Amino acid sequence: MHAMSRNFRALLQAQWDQKKFLCVGLDTDFEKLPAPWRERGVYEGILGFNRAIIDSTKDIASSYKPNTAFYEAHGDTGLSALRATIMYINENAPDLPVILDAKRADIGNTNFGYTAFAFDHLHADAITVHPYLGREALAPFLEREEKGIIVLCRTSNPGAGEFQDLSVDGESLYMRVARAVKDEWNTYGNCGLVVGATYPKELADVRAIADEIPILIPGIGAQGGDIGETVRAGKDARGRGMIISASRAVIFASSGEDFAERARAKAEEMHSAILAAL
Amino acid sequence: MHAMSRNFRALLQAQWDQKKFLCVGLDTDFEKLPAPWRERGVYEGILGFNRAIIDSTKDIASSYKPNTAFYEAHGDTGLSALRATIMYINENAPDLPVILDAKRADIGNTNFGYTAFAFDHLHADAITVHPYLGREALAPFLEREEKGIIVLCRTSNPGAGEFQDLSVDGESLYMRVARAVKDEWNTYGNCGLVVGATYPKELADVRAIADEIPILIPGIGAQGGDIGETVRAGKDARGRGMIISASRAVIFASSGEDFAERARAKAEEMHSAILAAL
Repeated sequence: MHAMSRNFRALLQAQWDQKKFLCVGLDTDFEKLPAPWRERGVYEGILGFNRAIIDSTKDIASSYKPNTAFYEAHGDTGLSALRATIMYINENAPDLPVILDAKRADIGNTNFGYTAFAFDHLHADAITVHPYLGREALAPFLEREEKGIIVLCRTSNPGAGEFQDLSVDGESLYMRVARAVKDEWNTYGNCGLVVGATYPKELADVRAIADEIPILIPGIGAQGGDIGETVRAGKDARGRGMIISASRAVIFASSGEDFAERARAKAEEMHSAILAAL
Repeated sequence: MHAMSRNFRALLQAQWDQKKFLCVGLDTDFEKLPAPWRERGVYEGILGFNRAIIDSTKDIASSYKPNTAFYEAHGDTGLSALRATIMYINENAPDLPVILDAKRADIGNTNFGYTAFAFDHLHADAITVHPYLGREALAPFLEREEKGIIVLCRTSNPGAGEFQDLSVDGESLYMRVARAVKDEWNTYGNCGLVVGATYPKELADVRAIADEIPILIPGIGAQGGDIGETVRAGKDARGRGMIISASRAVIFASSGEDFAERARAKAEEMHSAILAAL
């Protein structure tokens, strides 16, 4: 698929047509890499490790989700490894969308810097964003019709409720965010929501109002979210709509020489559990 | 001052002791650089321009605030220019704190990637963060006692109120954020708040409960915030507590050969207006 013609939602739909929902999170923490990769240094180590994970999981995964924090920790060198990783996915698994888990959001025109970063420089197909500044601020993201703009709604962390659960006009703030994204932000049908697998009740509440909006669901695996509960709460009326993401549990399933095989085995196990719960 | 001993709050207090409150925002948009700098390419152009701005404003400015979006737009090359810019400030204006306007926030341990990015790789003294994920998620930032953790509260953009003005338990969400930061997040006295100069009433409301917490106030200059209203609303009981930020209005005061002189003249004008309003 030519880079110019890529469309996040179409790529995602094609994955769902194949009953693929698992997103592999490339949270490639250099310090956790198997020793032979660490010894190659940041750029070669991270890129080489990611290539091996991608090669071993690309027929099971529906998408990849590198988190920028693990790359930016190493400055320009880490950023180069991130760009090379995304180019490797685009070349070797061109049907799989790449979600840049960057959790960005600035005001108005400043966001053009981040759309240039995520979409034009890194060639990601989607990005995660914070909702706090509102739709008007995020226009430079939302106007990229072919890209996915995935808005943090109810996050997977233990303290997520501090503000997200506050009651506004009789509903939780996260429900208000979900409603705003569905009713007002989604002009081009390119929006998504982030809801943690660690909160299946909240996930069900969001799905109940989000119709067919894709929900990115991190938190299975290392964070403890249950796949069966996640699928029951997260699927839309057509049994789709989910991007179920696991990171550490897959890519660091083993720290030995068998890390790529073990990552594949873990991804297969999760993929099967998702299908069984559908 | 040795890098290991730098403390954001102490650096800021020393500036306030000299009645310096103006923060120069290094929103160095490559496309807006004077032609001779654009012709040098991204790295040399951005860095050279920033050096000239820093040289001409460092005795007036209280701090510098590069916004990561303008650098990350150019990937690893832009990031290298950002790092070199901060190192230049550290070497040539070592008393001025550098606030990385990165508006980051991820969950738990992932934030260690961003603290490594902002503080260990880039050597910034402070960072701006989104509040949406809550205190628990932001612990890796908040635990950096010597750094400034400046939390978005009531932002300067026209659509800031979409969520920030929602009423929770009888007060606006942004007031709830201000209260949480003051009462619960500020264990180490290293927190700040962001409130836009474009909203002087909201700024006064936040100051009324924030005591001596530093408030980063963007939005004077190009965004239209009034300096007199800003100072009256933003100063604390001791006539301090403000980091008043202007970006485009200063650094792009002229696009000609006189850009550095004109930037200095604009900074002096703003500095004088702040002093007059105190």
